[in-house]
Amino acid sequence: MSTSAFPARTTTAEIELGTALQPKFGPDGLIPCITQDVHTGEVLMFAFMNTESLAHTLRTRMATYWSRSRNKLWVKGEESGNVQHVRELRTDCDQDVLLLKVEQTGAANASCHNGYKSCFYRKLANLDTAEAEGYRLSFTAERLFDPAAVYRKK
Amino acid sequence: MSTSAFPARTTTAEIELGTALQPKFGPDGLIPCITQDVHTGEVLMFAFMNTESLAHTLRTRMATYWSRSRNKLWVKGEESGNVQHVRELRTDCDQDVLLLKVEQTGAANASCHNGYKSCFYRKLANLDTAEAEGYRLSFTAERLFDPAAVYRKK
Repeated sequence: MSTSAFPARTTTAEIELGTALQPKFGPDGLIPCITQDVHTGEVLMFAFMNTESLAHTLRTRMATYWSRSRNKLWVKGEESGNVQHVRELRTDCDQDVLLLKVEQTGAANASCHNGYKSCFYRKLANLDTAEAEGYRLSFTAERLFDPAAVYRKK
Repeated sequence: MSTSAFPARTTTAEIELGTALQPKFGPDGLIPCITQDVHTGEVLMFAFMNTESLAHTLRTRMATYWSRSRNKLWVKGEESGNVQHVRELRTDCDQDVLLLKVEQTGAANASCHNGYKSCFYRKLANLDTAEAEGYRLSFTAERLFDPAAVYRKK
């Protein structure tokens, strides 16, 4: 266990209604993080941070997650060029979730490795009738880049 | 383990770029869910669903989560009256997160048990200087109801 740069958790009242950031990292050392476009409010992605990611995010103001699949620090955009500049960081009532509001840069303005602006590019097409008909998704966005081309170059 | 009403996961290509909903419930049977105001895009809360919650949500179009603290189905608003009517359900690229777009009803239009519209009612006050100064939060919203009064009546 690395020593956290962040304050220890105190009381429920302090955590929920106080003014000290006391993020709760789970037993795996991770806290969930929702990332939203600061201008449009679109939810771009959902990922995790550990203390190192959060410290790096705050130091550089570039969204930095923890990649569970690669087990390493993940500076968003380091491969694709689609960097996320953090404009606001929020936490929820019990401080076990973070919310970043970011400005994406990079040619494609895409946060998803599949080439979409947001990872949430599909919606349930038949919300009112899905139970009877089956759960069909429809696409809500256009692809902004071809992932094979972008990631191949690096 | 209960039998899932939802399709089994197939291939990465189908999951990421297909049109069948194939949600991934974790080893604990849960999938994270982000809930957003359909009109303003404000992120209201973050919670979890199991297969029963998701099925109930789709059947009733009222956001229904799984309460990990109470270990039971949690129809949002059943105590406070602040029901969330689901207008859209999205999933992310690898279908291990859900995103609900909802219309909140109820006198207070508050999703947070602390009486705020959103659980994300605090932001880091000193984003650019927090590392040196300490991580201070400031409030971004007004309280809409007094939780003690609302929950006491039930």
